[in-house]
Amino acid sequence: MPYQYFLVDRPLPYVAHVQINRPSKLNSFFEAMWLEFKTVFDTLSHDPEIRAIILSGAGDRAFTAGLDVQAASQAGILQQQEGKTEDVARKAVGIKRHVEEFQNCISSVEKCEKPVICVMHGFTLGLGMDISTCADIRICSADTKFAVKEVDIGLAADIGTLTRLPKAVGNFSWVKEVSLSARVFGAQEAYQVGYVSRVLETKEKALQAALEMAELLATKSPIAVQGTKELLNHARDHTVADSLRYTGVWNSAAIQTSDVERAMLSGLRKTKPRFEKL
Amino acid sequence: MPYQYFLVDRPLPYVAHVQINRPSKLNSFFEAMWLEFKTVFDTLSHDPEIRAIILSGAGDRAFTAGLDVQAASQAGILQQQEGKTEDVARKAVGIKRHVEEFQNCISSVEKCEKPVICVMHGFTLGLGMDISTCADIRICSADTKFAVKEVDIGLAADIGTLTRLPKAVGNFSWVKEVSLSARVFGAQEAYQVGYVSRVLETKEKALQAALEMAELLATKSPIAVQGTKELLNHARDHTVADSLRYTGVWNSAAIQTSDVERAMLSGLRKTKPRFEKL
Amino acid sequence: MPYQYFLVDRPLPYVAHVQINRPSKLNSFFEAMWLEFKTVFDTLSHDPEIRAIILSGAGDRAFTAGLDVQAASQAGILQQQEGKTEDVARKAVGIKRHVEEFQNCISSVEKCEKPVICVMHGFTLGLGMDISTCADIRICSADTKFAVKEVDIGLAADIGTLTRLPKAVGNFSWVKEVSLSARVFGAQEAYQVGYVSRVLETKEKALQAALEMAELLATKSPIAVQGTKELLNHARDHTVADSLRYTGVWNSAAIQTSDVERAMLSGLRKTKPRFEKL
Amino acid sequence: MPYQYFLVDRPLPYVAHVQINRPSKLNSFFEAMWLEFKTVFDTLSHDPEIRAIILSGAGDRAFTAGLDVQAASQAGILQQQEGKTEDVARKAVGIKRHVEEFQNCISSVEKCEKPVICVMHGFTLGLGMDISTCADIRICSADTKFAVKEVDIGLAADIGTLTRLPKAVGNFSWVKEVSLSARVFGAQEAYQVGYVSRVLETKEKALQAALEMAELLATKSPIAVQGTKELLNHARDHTVADSLRYTGVWNSAAIQTSDVERAMLSGLRKTKPRFEKL
Amino acid sequence: MPYQYFLVDRPLPYVAHVQINRPSKLNSFFEAMWLEFKTVFDTLSHDPEIRAIILSGAGDRAFTAGLDVQAASQAGILQQQEGKTEDVARKAVGIKRHVEEFQNCISSVEKCEKPVICVMHGFTLGLGMDISTCADIRICSADTKFAVKEVDIGLAADIGTLTRLPKAVGNFSWVKEVSLSARVFGAQEAYQVGYVSRVLETKEKALQAALEMAELLATKSPIAVQGTKELLNHARDHTVADSLRYTGVWNSAAIQTSDVERAMLSGLRKTKPRFEKL
Amino acid sequence: MPYQYFLVDRPLPYVAHVQINRPSKLNSFFEAMWLEFKTVFDTLSHDPEIRAIILSGAGDRAFTAGLDVQAASQAGILQQQEGKTEDVARKAVGIKRHVEEFQNCISSVEKCEKPVICVMHGFTLGLGMDISTCADIRICSADTKFAVKEVDIGLAADIGTLTRLPKAVGNFSWVKEVSLSARVFGAQEAYQVGYVSRVLETKEKALQAALEMAELLATKSPIAVQGTKELLNHARDHTVADSLRYTGVWNSAAIQTSDVERAMLSGLRKTKPRFEKL
Repeated sequence: MPYQYFLVDRPLPYVAHVQINRPSKLNSFFEAMWLEFKTVFDTLSHDPEIRAIILSGAGDRAFTAGLDVQAASQAGILQQQEGKTEDVARKAVGIKRHVEEFQNCISSVEKCEKPVICVMHGFTLGLGMDISTCADIRICSADTKFAVKEVDIGLAADIGTLTRLPKAVGNFSWVKEVSLSARVFGAQEAYQVGYVSRVLETKEKALQAALEMAELLATKSPIAVQGTKELLNHARDHTVADSLRYTGVWNSAAIQTSDVERAMLSGLRKTKPRFEKL
Repeated sequence: MPYQYFLVDRPLPYVAHVQINRPSKLNSFFEAMWLEFKTVFDTLSHDPEIRAIILSGAGDRAFTAGLDVQAASQAGILQQQEGKTEDVARKAVGIKRHVEEFQNCISSVEKCEKPVICVMHGFTLGLGMDISTCADIRICSADTKFAVKEVDIGLAADIGTLTRLPKAVGNFSWVKEVSLSARVFGAQEAYQVGYVSRVLETKEKALQAALEMAELLATKSPIAVQGTKELLNHARDHTVADSLRYTGVWNSAAIQTSDVERAMLSGLRKTKPRFEKL
Repeated sequence: MPYQYFLVDRPLPYVAHVQINRPSKLNSFFEAMWLEFKTVFDTLSHDPEIRAIILSGAGDRAFTAGLDVQAASQAGILQQQEGKTEDVARKAVGIKRHVEEFQNCISSVEKCEKPVICVMHGFTLGLGMDISTCADIRICSADTKFAVKEVDIGLAADIGTLTRLPKAVGNFSWVKEVSLSARVFGAQEAYQVGYVSRVLETKEKALQAALEMAELLATKSPIAVQGTKELLNHARDHTVADSLRYTGVWNSAAIQTSDVERAMLSGLRKTKPRFEKL
Repeated sequence: MPYQYFLVDRPLPYVAHVQINRPSKLNSFFEAMWLEFKTVFDTLSHDPEIRAIILSGAGDRAFTAGLDVQAASQAGILQQQEGKTEDVARKAVGIKRHVEEFQNCISSVEKCEKPVICVMHGFTLGLGMDISTCADIRICSADTKFAVKEVDIGLAADIGTLTRLPKAVGNFSWVKEVSLSARVFGAQEAYQVGYVSRVLETKEKALQAALEMAELLATKSPIAVQGTKELLNHARDHTVADSLRYTGVWNSAAIQTSDVERAMLSGLRKTKPRFEKL
Repeated sequence: MPYQYFLVDRPLPYVAHVQINRPSKLNSFFEAMWLEFKTVFDTLSHDPEIRAIILSGAGDRAFTAGLDVQAASQAGILQQQEGKTEDVARKAVGIKRHVEEFQNCISSVEKCEKPVICVMHGFTLGLGMDISTCADIRICSADTKFAVKEVDIGLAADIGTLTRLPKAVGNFSWVKEVSLSARVFGAQEAYQVGYVSRVLETKEKALQAALEMAELLATKSPIAVQGTKELLNHARDHTVADSLRYTGVWNSAAIQTSDVERAMLSGLRKTKPRFEKL
Repeated sequence: MPYQYFLVDRPLPYVAHVQINRPSKLNSFFEAMWLEFKTVFDTLSHDPEIRAIILSGAGDRAFTAGLDVQAASQAGILQQQEGKTEDVARKAVGIKRHVEEFQNCISSVEKCEKPVICVMHGFTLGLGMDISTCADIRICSADTKFAVKEVDIGLAADIGTLTRLPKAVGNFSWVKEVSLSARVFGAQEAYQVGYVSRVLETKEKALQAALEMAELLATKSPIAVQGTKELLNHARDHTVADSLRYTGVWNSAAIQTSDVERAMLSGLRKTKPRFEKL
């Protein structure tokens, strides 16, 4: 899996590790990167050798500092408004297409069928929030500096933070405060409000913790794990009645898996179950 | 109220106490039990002598260890797949019916018109989570060991945990972590993330706290209390605009109760109001 | 802006401070007040001189003790049931109209296009909860005494608390407990469950903190700030897919603002940006 | 299947015929009848011998004239308001329970997994509309006299007509006109607006047409037919995106049926396929 | 009720007739008119002397030719874009506010608690469609010329036609064809697709028919009629499950009216019932 | 634009004509075709030279006879169940992915920003219905033979017909009848129920009519036309309140187009407006 902007390796059986790999620029993104980002996650989503994914940023300084504003101001979204046309409505159509494609690329983390553990450290700004709100499990090192930074460049965050953060964290006052003010907050605050579920001393320790978690998930039935991700995401967006109905239909196929028998037998025999690829 | 698998008594006026009563098997459930469970809560829902309900597990060791997997593997849901037919789609129809009926039984706690205070202790696994997410108020003793256990038997939890937990707790990363990993978590962790709203030292103290809370709720206007439960559950599943509209219609009848006058007079006179049965 | 029941001044450029001004009656509300309340917020919503709003209660004792029950029992909602007609359905129509108008007035805080920082102190009961759940950012002083008080006057809260609280705070067990029991809770508890995002020692310090926050928000692009408020409120009530779509359309116009260029230039030059009125 | 108020027989293999059997009273309903009505359809829903259901009214004069108002004014819903209590809110709770149970009984036609062909003739008033809007296919004889009659007894129809009719017929002006005015309309009008999909000269011919249709449906794969009913009902109530997603999950099990192979082989060989029971 | 742009009289007891009264300009609208339009319908909505409303256009030539484009190009919406600011995003905010206020005024017909019968004749263009889609019952004279005209002035209709037409008429291909092409269609076509439920030879005959219909509605229980309007509009926008639940709560108050008894007695005695004002 | 399975040409300025081009096999589809189908429509969606699209089938005999069942039974969806795995749940995951990708390809017609006029003739079966329900305007020749054919091969239609047909046609009884029975229906019936909005004598005349319609749409402001398509599709799937809100935001950018001025000037001057590309 040789990618240009991402390191993707397999540190453990069934576990992929994706690193945003532009450390010299604080792992900031430009268009080609988020297009490749989608390819990475779409590929992993259907790769039968992978059951859990860790996402982190290469280097010491940042998970990602977000959009490479310099690149963006030369081409792409923030430049749309000076395109070939002067017509506001035509520019708007171009911007909308651009934003949707961008959203689509980042949402690939959420749509990925395998659980994604996001390990943050250092600067985790703007797009770094958009990306991490898409992940399933968020952990970070003690030095992480988060910010919903978009207000400071004159726009409302539009790649997913404002959409998903209110449903990721149960403190709407805090969500609004950090989103409206663009202020930086640290790892402890992120932990206390429930944005991350664990804080480790250093990036290395956070990665180690993520590896252990991924290893654990990779030993479970992939039918059970991937179904759980799907049903939790469905529940977030639907009424209880709708999700119960969807769950019933989902499990009407899933529960016919041989994994149930294998899991139960292993439970009784205290052995490690082995599950067929998915 | 003589039930086979549940102890139901009335420790205080207007207060029912329901105990899951199969302590020798860690209060684990099989089909006949969840059918009776529904009967218990449907009956209490309309019983004019009851205004608040406590739900707990008999014995020292468990609120409930969940599905009695042994029983289930001999008959019922996990066995569906080896029914009379070999046709996958026909099995799926049978499973769907079974899951829906099972969901329906457990949801009776949520649909019960009276507030339900769930007191947990010891093992509270799998179905124990499904049941407690349906309750209105959750408290536990310090020794409680929780787990969304289903992944470990090869399936995604389908009786309500995955549907309700993301809306009961405002920490989506944590919800996913415990649901995907099936790991055990304790009372303090449950309290910190907001799954339970109180932890007491022992089961006895937790029951005592629940009794005091139930006693308090039972002194309030049942029109007000039961309307509050209904409107909060509606709000969880609807937009603010929809819930405001529903609330207006709801109160257009409810507010015509004489309880308002009685409650206000009692407030002025510092007496205990008495409210007509409901 | 001379109002009868509210003090509205401009302590800082682009910052409005609204005070509920009936301290002799613990800032309790009657019908004329909530009608004027809506006028205040509707006016500020479109006032190009205002970019952030602080809402607090005059006097030392209360943000607001809620509905002036005495006034309400003489006229208005709680009296509806003794109107000219004896017909239950006709009374119900009158009550529904009344509740909807009342809801509408309080919702003006949420609909206001500018961020509203609610500073609470002392008694913050009943309607005080309805109002503060509409605000964007909630902070309070250490002496605040909160209660969802309506159950104690025999009714389910119908002006918004039951609708918005479950989405403001990610602890459904706690939300139900305080709503069903009407019990008082303090500043620390409000902070811990995430109802307020900050507690200050005194009302003065809380106001000072709010002023600093408002000043900060007022220096940001109003296009970005107001878009952020709108998109966060939209997200709370819609699926992720719907909100991403809405966001794309929203920003297709908003991103064409010159504020983006100004903000980025100021960022590079380390100067304070100035943004055109809105 | 000996029922008290319904004749249920099996005129053809896999086809059930349910007749409302109280012709002396124009097949009008009272409480015991709608409770039994639910039993009839719940039973047929899971009966593997049945693949299509015809619902009609016994006798020459009416499908059903609706609620037996006389019976209802002595006991039941219209009497609720003179129960044991004088408290408006308590009566309201009783009425709500009653209406929900009543709705639930009639909705059993919609929830029934098998397609229901409703054959109407003569008077089809009030509850007759509620029932027929739940059915899948509606046909009638030329003499049918329909009316959404409830307004004429002082109430808004609450057993489903107002809920389902706007989605059964694409002429909202007409839906409102007949619902607001309670006027009678005939078979031709019902056909022209799309309420019934076929009009036959006489009740006998209508029943004959229904039998042919039911026979046809009964020869198809029950997996395919019952899935189609479920997916169409889901589509009516959800967005296109949600229904496509639900459909994909539904068919992920259903398509694994051997019926696909059998149906295709029969298609090639021009033979009649035989499908396993469901 | 002396209005400037509308004639409002009471041709029959409990029946109001509202005429758009600017026949010299084909009843075309400018801003002051739609503001007054809202006042007219908000007033009638709560007027206890009114139980049914007819809406028509004064003069021989038009129900309304829609927006007075000349007026609009000098001030108001189409002029927004040349306001004081050049900033696209700030203009967009102004336009959005303007459109929302305009929508709000026209929606007053839908929100009006009483049924509105819209009688169309002659030109019924653009805004004429927006208005009539809000009405409950639509009838017209044979000479009516309809068009969803907005595309011809370079914009997508934004005052409600595109929102409500797909739910008023069950022929999505036709809805799109007339909305995309802006072509004129006549009374017969409108009748055939179900946009109007009746076509009369002349405006006079159409008004006469509307009067008879209004008279009929005015003799019915206003509790029943107004509840029916509310529940049908709710049903259009919600799932069947949600609307059944809302209906149960609605009728829990409404059914306690004395109108039920009066209506039933009158039915038995073949007399005209008289209902208390609402 | 040289495609393998589709002829795409430009018969008129701004008008594309897409022909399904496998007439020897009745234009039936296999996987490579629907993947290319998506490419065709995604490309046209953003092609500034195209403002209206006609979709038809090459040859005399069929728009399309649907899925090439023979091809499908050798590879692809109907074969999924005999993949490498025997595990039901793993097969289900494969099927779900396959169905979703297939749905996604066909939905490209609906997502295409330009209006699509679907011209049907001859056999229009199964997938032919899925495709045409996605189109904006449906017309056909008198010889068209339609069928929702999937039930006859043992499955519920899952590529969109069951999802979109209930919202395209306002006659739910008819929708269910044809979907459950798989019976063939002709052009007149399709017209009468509102599935097609026009029937022409022959395929040639139908194409001619489509060309005239497309030519007309192509002369209109593309901002207005494409906005109209988007808003109508949004309305189908959302509440009126949600769609009005979305519309206001949409037009806040769109209405700033110079097309409004051009369109109005052309209207006054009776000239043909020319609009900038989009």
